[in-house]
Amino acid sequence: MVDKIEDFYAVIPAGGVGSRLWPLSRADAPKFLHDLTGSGRSLLRDTWDRLEPLAGADRIAVVTGRAHRAAVEDQLPGIPDANVFLESEPRDSAAAIGLAAAILHRREPDVIIGSFAADHVISVLPVFHWAVQQAVAVAREGYICTIGITPTEPSVGFGYIKKADMLSVEGAPEAALVERFVEKPDLDTAKEYVASRDYLWNAGMFISRADVLLAEIEANNPALHAGLMELAEAWDDRERRGPVVDRVWPKLEKIAIDYAVAEPAALKGRLAVVPGHFDWDDVGDFASLAKLNSGGRKNDLAILGENARILSDAASGIVISHTQRVISLIGVKDIVVVDTPDALLVTTSEHAQRVKGVVDALKLTGRGDVL
Amino acid sequence: MVDKIEDFYAVIPAGGVGSRLWPLSRADAPKFLHDLTGSGRSLLRDTWDRLEPLAGADRIAVVTGRAHRAAVEDQLPGIPDANVFLESEPRDSAAAIGLAAAILHRREPDVIIGSFAADHVISVLPVFHWAVQQAVAVAREGYICTIGITPTEPSVGFGYIKKADMLSVEGAPEAALVERFVEKPDLDTAKEYVASRDYLWNAGMFISRADVLLAEIEANNPALHAGLMELAEAWDDRERRGPVVDRVWPKLEKIAIDYAVAEPAALKGRLAVVPGHFDWDDVGDFASLAKLNSGGRKNDLAILGENARILSDAASGIVISHTQRVISLIGVKDIVVVDTPDALLVTTSEHAQRVKGVVDALKLTGRGDVL
Repeated sequence: MVDKIEDFYAVIPAGGVGSRLWPLSRADAPKFLHDLTGSGRSLLRDTWDRLEPLAGADRIAVVTGRAHRAAVEDQLPGIPDANVFLESEPRDSAAAIGLAAAILHRREPDVIIGSFAADHVISVLPVFHWAVQQAVAVAREGYICTIGITPTEPSVGFGYIKKADMLSVEGAPEAALVERFVEKPDLDTAKEYVASRDYLWNAGMFISRADVLLAEIEANNPALHAGLMELAEAWDDRERRGPVVDRVWPKLEKIAIDYAVAEPAALKGRLAVVPGHFDWDDVGDFASLAKLNSGGRKNDLAILGENARILSDAASGIVISHTQRVISLIGVKDIVVVDTPDALLVTTSEHAQRVKGVVDALKLTGRGDVL
Repeated sequence: MVDKIEDFYAVIPAGGVGSRLWPLSRADAPKFLHDLTGSGRSLLRDTWDRLEPLAGADRIAVVTGRAHRAAVEDQLPGIPDANVFLESEPRDSAAAIGLAAAILHRREPDVIIGSFAADHVISVLPVFHWAVQQAVAVAREGYICTIGITPTEPSVGFGYIKKADMLSVEGAPEAALVERFVEKPDLDTAKEYVASRDYLWNAGMFISRADVLLAEIEANNPALHAGLMELAEAWDDRERRGPVVDRVWPKLEKIAIDYAVAEPAALKGRLAVVPGHFDWDDVGDFASLAKLNSGGRKNDLAILGENARILSDAASGIVISHTQRVISLIGVKDIVVVDTPDALLVTTSEHAQRVKGVVDALKLTGRGDVL
């Protein structure tokens, strides 16, 4: 069993709907509330369970929308009420993680925070813990530290982090500085990256002292920083919180933490990375969900759904059954079938990225009742 | 408007479930009760409407299962009660058509009957009527006459009828003798057939004097004939009918009329054919249903279902919606999606023939509740 890290606080931003997983993911049932691995637990709960040994149940905060409060508390019965940070509307990751940093910094000035998405799939646990332990050691030295995933294939679906010189930090033998971030590359470039061993996948995990993170936000986005400080100052006063959130939150700049914090820090030589040798998947669309659940076997049909009644004849891909209906698939390859009470999706792995377009079309055509 | 044919009686055997159209067709909602053309009328009703101008509403009989009595009467409000012939269980087409022939022959010894499947799609009406008129003229001469469809392509999905010498019958200038029936051929053979102009598709339509048909059954299947005569003798006596049906019907030989009547008659030179130049489709599976409803346009998505809410992005094939759900299809080609409240089918035109296998598997695995 891994030791708890005394000055560490885990932050789980649980914001995104996961439109590419519609009609499974919905505004009122976002991706992080679903069991996408057949484990019997939601991705959020799995994320909590990964972090609890490192941080302790009373030192994990979740940043989520007001609408998801009950679902989050239902998934995480051990979470202290004071650690559920509710957004009145989505303002992207810099605001969400920055809010947590600002609140936790006021409560505990020397705290080190680590932010971990609520809807990724990770194994094996000790390997993950080892990466976080190293990152915390690096953060203690005043760096902002990310965990970059060791690539297992030349993926064109992820951004990459280019390593620079190795750091010399006690307890973090694998830590290196980050030279730069790279957006999703083409296949040839991705192949070069993987072959070079200098590039890691950007999994959006950031570990740093709260004050260091806030200083970086202040340097790059002073208005955002000022808003976050105002929110944090009022947060733990029950009477003042509501009005300040209503006034300040909706005006915060919408910006991803990669742009507000990580990339500027990299340019200043203040961003470090430790490699994560664990299995990681952001389950970005049904193609990756199919892959994740078929164990990589191309000709298998993966089935998700407790009461699934599937009859398959020479079919492969994935079927997600959220109804009691008998589902029969004949001769369809790499198929994606998502069967819910009010919406049905049929596509293929190849077209999985286009699901988001359907969601947009449903909004535009007045069929938002199924979103 | 076509003239009524005074001595003509139309018989509609409405027996088959249409397993290849599951889950649209069910034991309690067989193919003939569905609107498969978007006309707003069931195939049975369309069949009735085609025959009514020739026979009159009081001279059309339907042979169907006891379970379908209410649905048939609902579809055909004009049908006399005495013209609904109920089977206690399915005994194939020779028994069904033979029963109608035997009953009608007792009521009207010189009657000419024509049997027409309840679940085929036919247009254009006057062309169909012209073929029936010719066939009745041929039948009056003592022949059993079938209507063979002029092939429009070298189909391997139908049986063929080979024409022999032309007949010389007044009112039937296109009539010919039949040399033989041919089972579904391979593609090369089918191409030869179509090129030769000597072959027509077997659409299972038979027109003859009732006494001639019964004599043919007697010659080939004397036990079946005896059973039919016993049934007919008791039929119009309300008290005797039930017990006789219960005793005799279940023991009748199960045989298709093609084997019991048409092929033996052909060998004796007693089977004639007139060509049908109308469009005809037996809607044997979802591939033909898709073709029928897309107007032959390969890249179209055909949609059946009154309240269909379909969102399609680069999809082709057919979607049949019997629920209120939003159905989204992305990038799936030649797809077949059948969405019903308790069962969902996803396959492709290419695999449409395998649907029957699924139905068999559902029976074997105890999921007959959705059949």
